[in-house]
Amino acid sequence: MPFPSYQYAPAWEIDQWINTRDELTVESFRGRVVVLHAFQMLCPACVSHGIPQAKAIHNAFPLDKLRVIGLHTVFEHHEAMGPVSLKAFIQEYRIPFPVGIDRRQGDDPIPLTMRAYGVQGTPSLILIDQKGHIRLHHFGQLDDLHVGATIGQLLTEGTA
Amino acid sequence: MPFPSYQYAPAWEIDQWINTRDELTVESFRGRVVVLHAFQMLCPACVSHGIPQAKAIHNAFPLDKLRVIGLHTVFEHHEAMGPVSLKAFIQEYRIPFPVGIDRRQGDDPIPLTMRAYGVQGTPSLILIDQKGHIRLHHFGQLDDLHVGATIGQLLTEGTA
Amino acid sequence: MPFPSYQYAPAWEIDQWINTRDELTVESFRGRVVVLHAFQMLCPACVSHGIPQAKAIHNAFPLDKLRVIGLHTVFEHHEAMGPVSLKAFIQEYRIPFPVGIDRRQGDDPIPLTMRAYGVQGTPSLILIDQKGHIRLHHFGQLDDLHVGATIGQLLTEGTA
Amino acid sequence: MPFPSYQYAPAWEIDQWINTRDELTVESFRGRVVVLHAFQMLCPACVSHGIPQAKAIHNAFPLDKLRVIGLHTVFEHHEAMGPVSLKAFIQEYRIPFPVGIDRRQGDDPIPLTMRAYGVQGTPSLILIDQKGHIRLHHFGQLDDLHVGATIGQLLTEGTA
Repeated sequence: MPFPSYQYAPAWEIDQWINTRDELTVESFRGRVVVLHAFQMLCPACVSHGIPQAKAIHNAFPLDKLRVIGLHTVFEHHEAMGPVSLKAFIQEYRIPFPVGIDRRQGDDPIPLTMRAYGVQGTPSLILIDQKGHIRLHHFGQLDDLHVGATIGQLLTEGTA
Repeated sequence: MPFPSYQYAPAWEIDQWINTRDELTVESFRGRVVVLHAFQMLCPACVSHGIPQAKAIHNAFPLDKLRVIGLHTVFEHHEAMGPVSLKAFIQEYRIPFPVGIDRRQGDDPIPLTMRAYGVQGTPSLILIDQKGHIRLHHFGQLDDLHVGATIGQLLTEGTA
Repeated sequence: MPFPSYQYAPAWEIDQWINTRDELTVESFRGRVVVLHAFQMLCPACVSHGIPQAKAIHNAFPLDKLRVIGLHTVFEHHEAMGPVSLKAFIQEYRIPFPVGIDRRQGDDPIPLTMRAYGVQGTPSLILIDQKGHIRLHHFGQLDDLHVGATIGQLLTEGTA
Repeated sequence: MPFPSYQYAPAWEIDQWINTRDELTVESFRGRVVVLHAFQMLCPACVSHGIPQAKAIHNAFPLDKLRVIGLHTVFEHHEAMGPVSLKAFIQEYRIPFPVGIDRRQGDDPIPLTMRAYGVQGTPSLILIDQKGHIRLHHFGQLDDLHVGATIGQLLTEGTA
């Protein structure tokens, strides 16, 4: 039986981490499920759906099994969503998980991690299994039942 | 490592099945996950939360992997929720899965299957794994994220 | 400027009143705004929208200014929604205002008050001003902002 | 019968208007009802409740009878909510009504119009009648039914 060939999650290129003192890497979470939530602070569907869902996931599962990581992938209105505004946003919306500011290069409006993952827009939800493979990659809203079922699957599979 | 001793799901004592021509049994679903939704048609939290969630589960997973079964566990207002009213309710609320009317015995207001499962009230959600064990038993509302995660786990475990 | 000629609200033909000992009549509420909510207990949009809205209106305005009256206009599944079932429904959903069971005549599935008002389906909302004129008659869902604005208007107009 | 003495709505002290080319004044809306919505772009309850309600009011009533005006009353995180960020916010959230940026003076974190109206926090809803009097002043969430009823009253009263 052929083993499905999953893509390994690319490295995160981050300018600045908020809500953590560590330089977080994909590799450091091997053995845990990672829920990567790509958002923009002025994206209405992120605020109404994506971020509340990410917070609910963060609260629902133990940290030693699953980690939620926010990725601020600004690709428009760059001046409107700088680090000062983002930090106030994170404080006001009480986002409890680490958020990395995706790094831009030169004049490219699309930041590096967003390009590497092929994120099409915000909000996007990316689930990385315990071996570091991307197992779900969804642009737009995805209901809690489907997200929960995939998380339950990845938690159960283990690293074997 | 001790294997957790789960309780086998008791048999269903049903007066009448709606939305199916078969006499459904717990055993016939071995190898599939069963989501048993105990409700009363005049229970507000069943109508606002439990039944929409059961319908969403029914629509989200393939029938050869998971089956949703409704259990009409009337323990109050028995005359108000008879089979004629229930059938109109099922039609108006477009419930797509089989519903069994839990059987009463003598003067006991609590019907037999409700007693056998220890259902405390409605809505109650009971998840039965592929081997026929009860793995989740919840009275009240349970959010989709938790329900989804448990379903994802039971689907992944298999029957091994 | 011609005065608009409004229709007077027809009389209520009621088999049985629930939540009141009185035989309520349209005329007895002259000088108050009447919110007439036509519903069926097994109508999903009544349960999810119409009844919660009617309860909110009942709670929002003083009884000496405005009265909410429920009208159970059963035009289908008559055997499923008889008085015993309706009373359990009213109790379980904690409906605090008077509800009249609309009277049927002969074999007509449409009851008398429903015919007299030209109610097209359930839920329907009918607003009667302080002089007894029908001022709003809406089949389906109507948002709170519009309903509130019309109520505010009718309360302000007075009987002059 | 004593006539209630209402407070006249203070003047608006605005740095910059968005969504309009005019310098709007309270006086210019005499004869119309004004719904003044004080908000901050990074205030969660403004985004989830206040702004959607203000947009619904804007869409529900004719412009020659009622005008919705946004007032950006920043009293915290001033650097995070400057004009560039606010304009992106207004564009992304598709706010259709004029928004004025409340003017600060010296080191006072509370801007001038916010002080003049005694706004306690955001979101705040202020209803000004056709004669220019403040008739409702509410900090926090206020349901559509109450807001609608007050609007209906103010529209009906006229300027007499």
